[in-house]
Amino acid sequence: MRLVPVEDSADPRLADYVRLRDVQLRKSLEAEHGLFIAEGEKVIRRAVETGYPVRSLLMARRWAEPLADLLQRVDAPVYVADERVLEDVAGFAVHRGALAAMSRKPLPPVPELLGTARRVLVLEDLVDHGNVGAIYRCAAALGVDAVVLSPRCADPLYRRAVKVSMGAVFAIPYARMDDWHHGLGELREVGFRLLALTPDQSAVPIEKAVTGERVALLLGSEGDGLSSRWLKAADEAVCIPMSADAMARGVDSLNVVAAASIACYGLMRS
Amino acid sequence: MRLVPVEDSADPRLADYVRLRDVQLRKSLEAEHGLFIAEGEKVIRRAVETGYPVRSLLMARRWAEPLADLLQRVDAPVYVADERVLEDVAGFAVHRGALAAMSRKPLPPVPELLGTARRVLVLEDLVDHGNVGAIYRCAAALGVDAVVLSPRCADPLYRRAVKVSMGAVFAIPYARMDDWHHGLGELREVGFRLLALTPDQSAVPIEKAVTGERVALLLGSEGDGLSSRWLKAADEAVCIPMSADAMARGVDSLNVVAAASIACYGLMRS
Repeated sequence: MRLVPVEDSADPRLADYVRLRDVQLRKSLEAEHGLFIAEGEKVIRRAVETGYPVRSLLMARRWAEPLADLLQRVDAPVYVADERVLEDVAGFAVHRGALAAMSRKPLPPVPELLGTARRVLVLEDLVDHGNVGAIYRCAAALGVDAVVLSPRCADPLYRRAVKVSMGAVFAIPYARMDDWHHGLGELREVGFRLLALTPDQSAVPIEKAVTGERVALLLGSEGDGLSSRWLKAADEAVCIPMSADAMARGVDSLNVVAAASIACYGLMRS
Repeated sequence: MRLVPVEDSADPRLADYVRLRDVQLRKSLEAEHGLFIAEGEKVIRRAVETGYPVRSLLMARRWAEPLADLLQRVDAPVYVADERVLEDVAGFAVHRGALAAMSRKPLPPVPELLGTARRVLVLEDLVDHGNVGAIYRCAAALGVDAVVLSPRCADPLYRRAVKVSMGAVFAIPYARMDDWHHGLGELREVGFRLLALTPDQSAVPIEKAVTGERVALLLGSEGDGLSSRWLKAADEAVCIPMSADAMARGVDSLNVVAAASIACYGLMRS
């Protein structure tokens, strides 16, 4: 364990941690350096346990002791700083105590990811990192084997996704399609039946869907749902049946996390 | 329609809209004046349609035209201001175009709320306004008849709850218990069977729960779940069965919105 005091928020050794709320900056910085940020003891422990290499840690000094066992096992500098310096660097008050800059691991190609998986989720262009994280948590709890992301889907290792997932983004194998147009073909080739989840109440209720040995559930973006291309490419469109008076109540759909939760639950019991 | 230009962010006529992100300030200000804030065209329309009185509206001038039909029907001042003034008052850039300060309506006593309801949710001490809003949206979509709040449960009319609910907080009748200790008794007296939702995997799987004519599903707070008092007071503890490898994946529970969604879906089909 190397505790390294840092007193200047402009210290270049803290460059991995700058302006954590600036989404555009973070996206390009994290892609360029192949890094991501884990926040809070539980999440950092999960990231380390699942084999993500630590670049460095950053925390207020009082957090070093509760994390001592973890810090012993990590071969990386541990920067300690005043809460004021932390806030200057990160751009907000760091309440969860510790931050870790971690290296990403290479993602497997989709066919390799699918391996022996039987139940997978495919996320098309979700934009909200919180929703992505919540879906991973739900998938991990209910036993989904793997997640496939469309090329433009939000990053599961973005700080907010990691946090909302409670670390489940480290536990579920995932991959990103190279090609939105033909990406679903790779699932079909290895025998997956594709179910497209839609708010359209004329679709088949999820509990009556035909499933089978290998099933992929396609989930669309928050605003527009699945693209018409993916809806057409699916074997069957399925819905969560809503109450007859939902429309009168001004509610025309469930949010994507609620819908995904119900659909996953149904799917995992089929 | 009275368009009233306002140029000074300190104008006392905008007092209802100050520092919308300051949770402590807003809680006391909204309680004191019996008001709440609705944000965005869709949500404001829903609030007006469901009979909440408008105190005033505030928007950039360019929003007045798309909202003209609504503004005609509303007997309240419509303040128009530069985006800079809006930002100064609200404390953030107001992207959704329009804000409305609305009056609250008196909540019914719990026995009156329950009336002929058959399926209700009871929320104990949820602290996150987003979760409360998401649960209302889910409840409205799936056909829950009413929601009962514990005395300390977060406010469904807080701005973030209203927004996340997509206006469902206006559509579902709800009430707040006077007394946490004896509040569940009022449900039991009128024949409700009380199901306590818990992550404890030794509880009865939700789909095997005994339901009956009137059922109340009790949902606990994000961190600690239901209090032991409420767990004991329930007729049956029920759980969402998780995957056998969820714990190995570091996931020991679903989040409250995912759990509520799955449980409501099961309950509404019983």
